[in-house]
Order: sequence, then C-alpha cells, then structure tokens
Amino acid sequence: MRVSAVSAGDSSQRDDLLVAEEPLEIRLGHGPEHDRKEVRLSVTMRTPGHDEELALGFLFTEGIIARKEEVMHVAYCADVKEEERGNVVRAELHPSVELDPARWQRNFYTTSSCGVCGKSSIDAVRTQCSVPLGASGRLEAAVITSLPDRMREAQTVFKHTGGIHAAALFDEAGELLLLREDIGRHNAVDKVVGAMLSGSVTPDERILLVSGRAGFELVQKCLMAGIPRMAAVGAPSSLAVQLARDGGLTLIGFLRGDRFNVYTGTL
Amino acid sequence: MRVSAVSAGDSSQRDDLLVAEEPLEIRLGHGPEHDRKEVRLSVTMRTPGHDEELALGFLFTEGIIARKEEVMHVAYCADVKEEERGNVVRAELHPSVELDPARWQRNFYTTSSCGVCGKSSIDAVRTQCSVPLGASGRLEAAVITSLPDRMREAQTVFKHTGGIHAAALFDEAGELLLLREDIGRHNAVDKVVGAMLSGSVTPDERILLVSGRAGFELVQKCLMAGIPRMAAVGAPSSLAVQLARDGGLTLIGFLRGDRFNVYTGTL
Repeated sequence: MRVSAVSAGDSSQRDDLLVAEEPLEIRLGHGPEHDRKEVRLSVTMRTPGHDEELALGFLFTEGIIARKEEVMHVAYCADVKEEERGNVVRAELHPSVELDPARWQRNFYTTSSCGVCGKSSIDAVRTQCSVPLGASGRLEAAVITSLPDRMREAQTVFKHTGGIHAAALFDEAGELLLLREDIGRHNAVDKVVGAMLSGSVTPDERILLVSGRAGFELVQKCLMAGIPRMAAVGAPSSLAVQLARDGGLTLIGFLRGDRFNVYTGTL
Repeated sequence: MRVSAVSAGDSSQRDDLLVAEEPLEIRLGHGPEHDRKEVRLSVTMRTPGHDEELALGFLFTEGIIARKEEVMHVAYCADVKEEERGNVVRAELHPSVELDPARWQRNFYTTSSCGVCGKSSIDAVRTQCSVPLGASGRLEAAVITSLPDRMREAQTVFKHTGGIHAAALFDEAGELLLLREDIGRHNAVDKVVGAMLSGSVTPDERILLVSGRAGFELVQKCLMAGIPRMAAVGAPSSLAVQLARDGGLTLIGFLRGDRFNVYTGTL
C-alpha cells in the first residue's frame, strides 16, 4: 500500500508491505463435515498460511489432544460463506476421542475447577505434561548466541514487513530444523509444533527460539510439545520462570549479541 | 531472582527482576456476590495492578458495555480460594443491563453469525462504534516523534525488567495523560481506557501510543474507546489498516527516532 513516510519533518509517499492478518476458526468433529456434534473450538487472529499445522499444534499444546494420532485429518471447510473460505479449518478426530466441549474448556485453565492463580495454572499444565523433560546433552554458549541470526536470515516475511513474530526449532548443533512466522507469537509456536508433529522431527534435545518475550503461555506450549529448552530474545515473566522450573525446562532470556541469561535448568 | 548471565562465553551470577504475570478472571453480576446469574466472562494473563481499570476497559473496548454507567462497581471477589485472592474481579452491572452471555459472545466476533473473515470482523466492530471518529485538530510531526521517549521516561516497570508492554495516552501538545504497563499489550490498552473512563480524561483529540505492533485487536480497542489517533512503535497488520481506514482512525506505524509512517487518516 502507499503510505506517507515522515522523516525529520519531511513527508514523502512510498510503498509499504503489510503483514497479513485474518481470523482462523478451528472446528472439531467426527467423520465428514456437518456431523451433528461438530464443535467450534476457537478463533485466533493469525497470518494465513500453514493453517493445518497451526490447528494441529494448537490442539496439542493446549491439551485438547494427547497424541497426534487422535487427529485423523485437518482441512479447510468447504461449506462456509465465500468470504470466509480459507479462514475455517476442521480437525477430524479419531472415533475414540469423545467430542466433549466441557472437558476441553477445563484445559484452558479458565474455569473455577482449575482455579485462577499462578499456582493452579501451573498445576493444570503439569497434570497434562506426560513427557518428563530435561535435556541430557549440553548446548555450547556459542551455539546459543548464533541462533537469533540464523533465525533472522531464514525469515522471509519479516524482511519485507518488519512486523511479524517468529519461532524456530534448532538441533543441538544449532542447525535450523523448522521456522514459522505469524503476527501472533503463540501461533508461530503452534505452527512449529504442528509441523513437528506432521513430519519426522522429534522434540528431544532441541531448542525452541522465539522472537519476543517468554510468557507463561509460550512456556506452556514448549512443555506440552516436549521440547526441553526454550530461548527468547526478550524477557521471561515470573510465572513463565516458575512453570519452566517446575517442568524441567531450560529457559534462556534476553538472547542478544553474545549475551543471554539462563533462568532455569542447565545448558 | 538469581540468574546465570552469559557474556562472550563467560558465565556469572547476578540478580534479575522479572515482570509479574498472573491470571485475572473477570466476572459479571447484579447486586452482591453470589448472585444466581453471575457470569464468568473471561480470563486473561496480566501483570497485577490497576485490575479494576483493566476490567472496566476490557468490558468497554470489547463492547460488553456501551457506556461506563452500565458498570456500578468493580471489586476483587472476597469469596475465592486463598491463593486466588487478588486474581478475580467482579463487575456489578446496572440493573438495566441484562446478563446475557449469548449476546456477549457474539461481540467477540467468534461465532458464525459474525462470520470468520476480515470483512465480517470489521463489520462487527463497526456496528458497535457509535462515535464517529476523526480528529479535527492537527498534530505536529515533531510532537509525534517525541512521544516514544516521553513514554519510555515514564515507564517504571520496563526500566527494571525490560519485559513489558506499555500504552500511553497523550494530548495534542504531546503531554502524557495516562500510562499503563502490562505483560499483555491488550491489557495495557484496556488499563488506559479503563483509567480514562474512571477519571476525567476524554478521548477527543488524543493519541494513543503502543509499544509494540498495531494488530487488529488494538485498533479495535482504540476505535471502541473513541480515541481518534493511534501510533505504534512497530508495524501495523493488513486488517488493522483496513479497520482504521473504515473507522476514520489516524494510524501511525514504525514510530522510531525522527521517522514514522502514516497508514490512514491525517495528522
């Protein structure tokens, strides 16, 4: 689009690329579309692309499903209004998975049964993390400090718009395995996790790098995905650190230049 | 807390302050606590503090209430578990406001009646914005470029933690009227709007500055609050620009140093 670029008081017209943002609705059901018990789970504002991975990753990191085999198939819904096409996906669940909105709602730690405090939020996540964490290997500090540049070099949308979050999965040697970009930081992580589940990449011994801050929900997603280490370019929150410690996650923050802080765990 | 600070490969121990993050549950009801029709509206992860303003701002910018007079009182709930104390607030609604969760849910543009596409999201917001926007005055470019420094100077939590978003309301001369910080960018805006509604500050001719990117939901909140101009340190999204244009909002992005871009509207 054409924008007025103002610099030192002078204004000029120039072209500017924007990050795309659209809502995505995730539905769950058994069998074909229009199953009577179809459930509309959630809507998230996201950058279109990798939507099946986003849905799969979201279902997994939020504890809606416990194993990737519980989702048979994710596809765009065909029977929606013309203008909504491409913004509604449906996950077909395995027949053994009950369609139980009440149970799912509990997973979002938004009900009184979970309680509304940091401690109960952590308890709610812990009861769902079946994989005990803790990396057995050791990451070199020089590998860790190389990660932001490696992620930035691989980012395509950021280069053009400067306005998007990224999440990237690296192996112990600092090799980039998966990178996803999204206007929502949570979505970028869910897309990486969805891609991990869809493909042959395993979480063991990996490290997840996020472009922003490390809040509670990102640490939750990392733990649910079984990734033993997380690094953030920005700061972690108090609750994120508590949850990381509780889950055996190595949490690194303020990863910039040749510096970083280790908040929990060992390299 | 004690962290391992790694710099150029050398590790040392030092103290680090973290941004506090805790869940906040917002409940709605008539009369005293335990009203039979009490509704648990939502849970957000936020930095504790200014919670009554956060609740009031959230109810207003999400279209749950149309006028501040519809909320009689916001207070922490007393009858909750010990560890949840301070994390649950209840807004007492005016008796004339019906407790109708179904209606409120529609406001979150998450249901099929709203549709799930950018256009219908914009339509949903537009039908709720009763105040036609558009500032009549004019802001000087030099005033606009001074705003980030003024906000940064007033930030207290950021100075100590480096890990928090901010939103600030300024008048036409660049004077800071309100500043709030929160780990969630939406919460920082809701706290400013709640403070605006609670006090004597009006939205006319003001400009709202946000420390991060300008996504759809932040522009929505700015429009709902009746603030005619918004500036972001980061990039706007495609849908944010569409909504701003549609609502008559002046939207400024990439406000850094002596430069910024004007995406919609006039200064």
